[in-house]
Amino acid sequence: MSDLARKTAENLRKIRATKPLIHNITNFVVMNYTANVLLATGASPVMAHAENEVEEMVGFAGALVLNIGTLTDIWVESMLKAGRKATELGKPIVLDPVGAGATRLRTEAAKKILAATKVSVVRGNASEILALGDQKTGGKGVDAIHSVEDAEVAARQLSRSLHTTLAVTGPVDLVTDGVKMIKIANGHSLMPTVTGTGCSASAIIGAFLAVDADPISAAATGLAFFGIAGEKAGATAGGPGTFMIQLLNALYTLTPEEVEQRCRITVI
Amino acid sequence: MSDLARKTAENLRKIRATKPLIHNITNFVVMNYTANVLLATGASPVMAHAENEVEEMVGFAGALVLNIGTLTDIWVESMLKAGRKATELGKPIVLDPVGAGATRLRTEAAKKILAATKVSVVRGNASEILALGDQKTGGKGVDAIHSVEDAEVAARQLSRSLHTTLAVTGPVDLVTDGVKMIKIANGHSLMPTVTGTGCSASAIIGAFLAVDADPISAAATGLAFFGIAGEKAGATAGGPGTFMIQLLNALYTLTPEEVEQRCRITVI
Amino acid sequence: MSDLARKTAENLRKIRATKPLIHNITNFVVMNYTANVLLATGASPVMAHAENEVEEMVGFAGALVLNIGTLTDIWVESMLKAGRKATELGKPIVLDPVGAGATRLRTEAAKKILAATKVSVVRGNASEILALGDQKTGGKGVDAIHSVEDAEVAARQLSRSLHTTLAVTGPVDLVTDGVKMIKIANGHSLMPTVTGTGCSASAIIGAFLAVDADPISAAATGLAFFGIAGEKAGATAGGPGTFMIQLLNALYTLTPEEVEQRCRITVI
Repeated sequence: MSDLARKTAENLRKIRATKPLIHNITNFVVMNYTANVLLATGASPVMAHAENEVEEMVGFAGALVLNIGTLTDIWVESMLKAGRKATELGKPIVLDPVGAGATRLRTEAAKKILAATKVSVVRGNASEILALGDQKTGGKGVDAIHSVEDAEVAARQLSRSLHTTLAVTGPVDLVTDGVKMIKIANGHSLMPTVTGTGCSASAIIGAFLAVDADPISAAATGLAFFGIAGEKAGATAGGPGTFMIQLLNALYTLTPEEVEQRCRITVI
Repeated sequence: MSDLARKTAENLRKIRATKPLIHNITNFVVMNYTANVLLATGASPVMAHAENEVEEMVGFAGALVLNIGTLTDIWVESMLKAGRKATELGKPIVLDPVGAGATRLRTEAAKKILAATKVSVVRGNASEILALGDQKTGGKGVDAIHSVEDAEVAARQLSRSLHTTLAVTGPVDLVTDGVKMIKIANGHSLMPTVTGTGCSASAIIGAFLAVDADPISAAATGLAFFGIAGEKAGATAGGPGTFMIQLLNALYTLTPEEVEQRCRITVI
Repeated sequence: MSDLARKTAENLRKIRATKPLIHNITNFVVMNYTANVLLATGASPVMAHAENEVEEMVGFAGALVLNIGTLTDIWVESMLKAGRKATELGKPIVLDPVGAGATRLRTEAAKKILAATKVSVVRGNASEILALGDQKTGGKGVDAIHSVEDAEVAARQLSRSLHTTLAVTGPVDLVTDGVKMIKIANGHSLMPTVTGTGCSASAIIGAFLAVDADPISAAATGLAFFGIAGEKAGATAGGPGTFMIQLLNALYTLTPEEVEQRCRITVI
């Protein structure tokens, strides 16, 4: 879709020009890499999770990214506090429900955040996203997903019931607001071999939301940009180590023109 | 020992085929690198330390890795809870006593974990391991170790009194269950110049334990594999930076055949 | 200044010969990179923040580095405890006031640490450092700084009122103890594109303080060394990813002679 390709380039230009502050409350495993990904993209990352600091910090931010890996109860409280303040201030929120569906703590935390705050985009893999649905009210469970078509139907339905845009990442990424459905085919097979690439995708969507008020457009263009950087990095990487390093270089050196040309986004 | 070389290759094949989940409760410094090391090897890492999550998480895991760097009391509680559950479920546990012998908090935490859970393998350097012994009952202290022979006698004796397999890493690695003694000569001099290579060795032993029920074999083959990856990385690295990146590439690209050929394991 | 160039080489030689233990209580984002920077330089890093461990740990250390990124109240308590003990033992302390001026929690924590302990060097960017001044008593705020000359006057004045050496890093670094003023012109434009380079500079100043009792000399020579490593890394880096890796290589491979030749330090 040439419109969204142009929008991807435009959003990247805006991020580099305005360097929006992205407030992350995220897990210990990916904090360093996420910060480097945001810096390389052109945004300004800040990590802050203290209960007595998050409301003040989110006031300066262009977007808030909540990521529930390595979670504990006290972090959930901070996320809720930051999320409520962001909602009050009209700042976009990205939720990354790492491990939702795996343990009760994570599934419940993700649902609490969704209920208490206005989340613009949820970014996760298929099983994490589907774990956010309420099985009782007819949502399709992961076991019920037998085809790409099933996944699309389930995502559209869940997006509507959660009142948020969903970004389901995998070999092909899917973004839906319950009505529109966008597919992003950019990316590279080495991405899942590096920890935190999913979390980085969520952070980049945060940066794109800081310059693009439309959640579905911000999510789709952010994922396309990240996928293109993955392709560029993967072209020369000899394994996950060099891939993670080349990915930072690619995020930094990609020009908006290059990005616009390489976008593989389809609206369906 | 060609038997253990074959076993190293076989264990690596099993890890890549079954992608065992390795549950790590580890320190902040090495979380990212440890996760990347496990992913590159072929395992599935998860980091989770919440007191109200660890028992559920360890239920999904093929092995539990407890690492006491950047420790606090609340983390000790989580480690004990996870360790007791793993013991109950018969899941293998690796203990990495980072800094045992340096501070009371760490020495006591390591001893508590050893007393309360069934640890399959303790992986540390010589002084960390020897700090786990009880000086009063005749264990040899670090000061008493004046030769390789002394170290071997001390390790064998300590392994028996702790009822666990010990993996003492250094220029040459030593693995003993109190009876058998295995030496692994693989490795590279740049390894100690990167933080978390010891912790990564412990995590890899966890992955090998998930596919090999024999602690002494899992520890020896895991260390051989990690050492070979170090050799491959060190062959082209111009310093610790490129070494840590090439090490991830090597873990990912080494074939079982290559590993089998390069093993330098001796049973003594 | 050829005296300080010689001193830079001499300090580097001493660090590599004595491998001083540097005790860091620092933020989650940069723990791994900071440890690798210290290891590559030749020092021995330890990260420890438990309230019941920090006093014991700092007793073994050559210097204590306190960094207030990703702060919470409980970490402030540990920093104060470690800092008081270091003061009592006469060990040098570096304070990195990450984000001071941005939120109350951080500004107040930095001021508390300055009041309760004897800090040898504060290392930060201009706005972080100036946030430590008391506006009411006539200190110049960030808004009042309109030229390099203004910044120098403000730093000199603040250094005197805080009774500590200030290291203000930026395109050109400034070190002052209120009387002397030193400029360091080494460095590379890619440095701010990697998270934790400022924090690493603080940690390196810690390592230099462990071998050089004069705060202004330790800060200036540490920053020159770090800047030179940045120049060497930047000469071949294709972006922030390879830059952060090449920086570790450069810290490790730079010889004292090379460092002495490349120093661009001016006493003014």
